[in-house]
Amino acid sequence: MIDSSANTTKTARITLVGAGPGDAELITIKGIKALKTADVVLYDALVNEELLELAPAGAVMVYVGKRSGDQTHSQANINQLMVDYARNYGHVVRLKGGDPFVFGRGFEELEFAAAHNIPAQIVPGISSSIGVPGLQHIPVTHRGLSESFWVVTGTTASGKISTDLVEAARSKATVVVLMGIHKLAEITEIFKAEGKGNLPAAVIQSGTTTNEKAAIGVVNTIVEAAAQNQITSPALIIFGEVVSLHPDFKQIKALYDALA
Amino acid sequence: MIDSSANTTKTARITLVGAGPGDAELITIKGIKALKTADVVLYDALVNEELLELAPAGAVMVYVGKRSGDQTHSQANINQLMVDYARNYGHVVRLKGGDPFVFGRGFEELEFAAAHNIPAQIVPGISSSIGVPGLQHIPVTHRGLSESFWVVTGTTASGKISTDLVEAARSKATVVVLMGIHKLAEITEIFKAEGKGNLPAAVIQSGTTTNEKAAIGVVNTIVEAAAQNQITSPALIIFGEVVSLHPDFKQIKALYDALA
Repeated sequence: MIDSSANTTKTARITLVGAGPGDAELITIKGIKALKTADVVLYDALVNEELLELAPAGAVMVYVGKRSGDQTHSQANINQLMVDYARNYGHVVRLKGGDPFVFGRGFEELEFAAAHNIPAQIVPGISSSIGVPGLQHIPVTHRGLSESFWVVTGTTASGKISTDLVEAARSKATVVVLMGIHKLAEITEIFKAEGKGNLPAAVIQSGTTTNEKAAIGVVNTIVEAAAQNQITSPALIIFGEVVSLHPDFKQIKALYDALA
Repeated sequence: MIDSSANTTKTARITLVGAGPGDAELITIKGIKALKTADVVLYDALVNEELLELAPAGAVMVYVGKRSGDQTHSQANINQLMVDYARNYGHVVRLKGGDPFVFGRGFEELEFAAAHNIPAQIVPGISSSIGVPGLQHIPVTHRGLSESFWVVTGTTASGKISTDLVEAARSKATVVVLMGIHKLAEITEIFKAEGKGNLPAAVIQSGTTTNEKAAIGVVNTIVEAAAQNQITSPALIIFGEVVSLHPDFKQIKALYDALA
């Protein structure tokens, strides 16, 4: 499958690099340095493709974005491609959206590399869970409003909503849900069941990119607000009093209060 | 207090920049760009001072690391210095450890700037809560082990342990405690009270720097392990099954089992 005439004198190695939330300038210096020495770049769907231009001219670029509904198979393929390319070409940069270890299955890739005796390095990335709300002026923590934040996936291995989300809805933590936008209505029901219909909530699509869009409201209104703003995947959801710090919130709150 | 003979033709502006966990190469490209146009850099105790060399030669460097026990007063001073320097010198880069909004009081600085009509930008940083465990081969999430992670401060405004930590100890989330090393024994008691004495736990000091040290164990042993390894502040604590993925854990576990 892979061209075996490639340079085989290079040492096989892998660097897992977090590309950050989308803006190409939100990658780290260390990430850039890895890219500049890449022989192969395996990149995901959510990675900014401008970053690929930083790799050497002759580097092989391989898109490994997952097809929906076929994730398990795909991850096995990615692992194998990563190891095969490293053996045949040398330095593989595995460029992943956000941080490699925040629902990125990065550790599975690290374990696979280790099982095949290929040395692997890690370069953390800005996780959208923190950086995207922050850039929308929603701090995940703030004195008097939040002493903690809890990041949960909306898409578990089983396809069901994580029971962690039920616990999170009961807590006082700022709750950030990644990959949950398709289940927004179902997720808000969990918060409503805890009597939190008036808790401030936001959805942010494609944070830090030119396609960024946000909808701000409370648990009871966020599904409608997201629909009105035509928010689609990729998007994250934030629940918590810190959302009330968003510049649009006061105005929205005044409107709700007038309608109530 | 501030030299008013400075260049007053520059426009006052502020950029809150997350410097990342310690390694100078873990700042973003956007953070570097902000530093290169700084007239003043206000920097914290946990910021890598190598980064200051990236600012222009004439830039003013101001250390604003907080003195222990005098935090409220200090934050007010920092806010005022930030605004005064911006008015007198132009572009102030407020360089903060980690991400500005993860227990960094960054939003208070943003609000202060807004109240004084000084435009402010945000540049997210790698939060030590994710990046430091990851580089120690402890992923905050991993299929089959953790569907969420919960980041809590060990030092609240009141000085008491956050009640969020009590809730976190009950949850299935990976729990990361920042600024809690001085209360390690007290914090482990919370987990013990939940019957989690055998839950894997780690402490990591000065992550991503040349002073990095880690101690791995379980809730029942981590206080002793931290003492043996002479772990001191700054350090973070991680509780969760994901800690069992650390390369040293199996060996330590075998030792515990033999002693039990």
